[in-house]
Amino acid sequence: MSSQLLEQLIEAFRVLPGVGRKTAQRMAYHVLERERDGGKKLAETLQSAIDKIGHCERCRDFSEDAVCATCTAPARDPQLLCAVESPADLLAIEQATGYRGRYFVLQGRLSPLDGIGPRELGLDLLSSRLAEGEVRELIIATNPTVEGEATAHYLAQLARQHGVRPSRLAHGVPLGGELEYVDRGTLSHAFGSRSEMP
Amino acid sequence: MSSQLLEQLIEAFRVLPGVGRKTAQRMAYHVLERERDGGKKLAETLQSAIDKIGHCERCRDFSEDAVCATCTAPARDPQLLCAVESPADLLAIEQATGYRGRYFVLQGRLSPLDGIGPRELGLDLLSSRLAEGEVRELIIATNPTVEGEATAHYLAQLARQHGVRPSRLAHGVPLGGELEYVDRGTLSHAFGSRSEMP
Ligand SMILES: [Zn+2]
Ligand SMILES: [Zn+2]
Repeated sequence: MSSQLLEQLIEAFRVLPGVGRKTAQRMAYHVLERERDGGKKLAETLQSAIDKIGHCERCRDFSEDAVCATCTAPARDPQLLCAVESPADLLAIEQATGYRGRYFVLQGRLSPLDGIGPRELGLDLLSSRLAEGEVRELIIATNPTVEGEATAHYLAQLARQHGVRPSRLAHGVPLGGELEYVDRGTLSHAFGSRSEMP
Repeated sequence: MSSQLLEQLIEAFRVLPGVGRKTAQRMAYHVLERERDGGKKLAETLQSAIDKIGHCERCRDFSEDAVCATCTAPARDPQLLCAVESPADLLAIEQATGYRGRYFVLQGRLSPLDGIGPRELGLDLLSSRLAEGEVRELIIATNPTVEGEATAHYLAQLARQHGVRPSRLAHGVPLGGELEYVDRGTLSHAFGSRSEMP
């Protein structure tokens, strides 16, 4: 590599998810050859986003402001609160469903071995939120992994302590999925949770 | 999207090659959730690379200096000059072959309809380079497209005018390629260019 800085740029691109050496190289060349303006804009926006985007002090989603727009939107039902592990999960629910309640972003899941306990997930904040008395249902949308399930059980207890009804997303055979290719755990769960057809 | 800046960051990532809305979103969330330091480094390096990396005044490859390291390396054979369309092509040859001559980067190919003529490809610079008398062979490594071929013919003429021998990369069935899947033009060329087996 004839330019040290070009080499550094290629390495820097590898911080992006799914970007290996080859892709990073293509990105660096592409920007320098054809997208210098767009590249400048990316550099500035990235810098500014990292400096300014923190977390909403009410729901812990990404936010530039102390309290985010979702938390203050009057059109959203304050009786429904949906707990998710990450901002990406929140976005997936926003884009896939018609949910119009509010959210709480755990920024992780209980994982004692990694030192992630109730405090790291902001559960004291969630607890006082539930204690306010406005929330009626806590929709627990943690991932269906071992740790996600443990977190869900913990959250369900917390909800019940505050007289809030906990609920959990349905698990089962994905729509359009073929039984043959569904993993055994999911299939077993789906079979056990079968419901009478109307 | 609750944050305007987050939305701008997602859009900014789309300047990268092969990055659509979904991937851009994943990149933005990944950096903000887990790689703020790496993201800062990427922003700074990108800014700095765009500001400082220009083109070598001798070979037109990317370079931070007026003349790049490849052009000044004493170990490289000055009698061999390889013309490529882009810095990415140069890198591909460096990585795949044992070539130890020098390069000339056209930064494009002849395309009169797009206003790309000899001047845009720096052929005056190439011409005076060949006139210096040191280069014996001009290896023409433009792409085997219609425009790349036209450029190759033009360069070959230029080389001959200066008493320099033009050569062209071999075309044919790719190693490991199956005849069945090779495009007709390539197969026809490979058939016509067959050579006697030793
Ligand atoms: Zn919020
Ligand atoms: Zn050079």
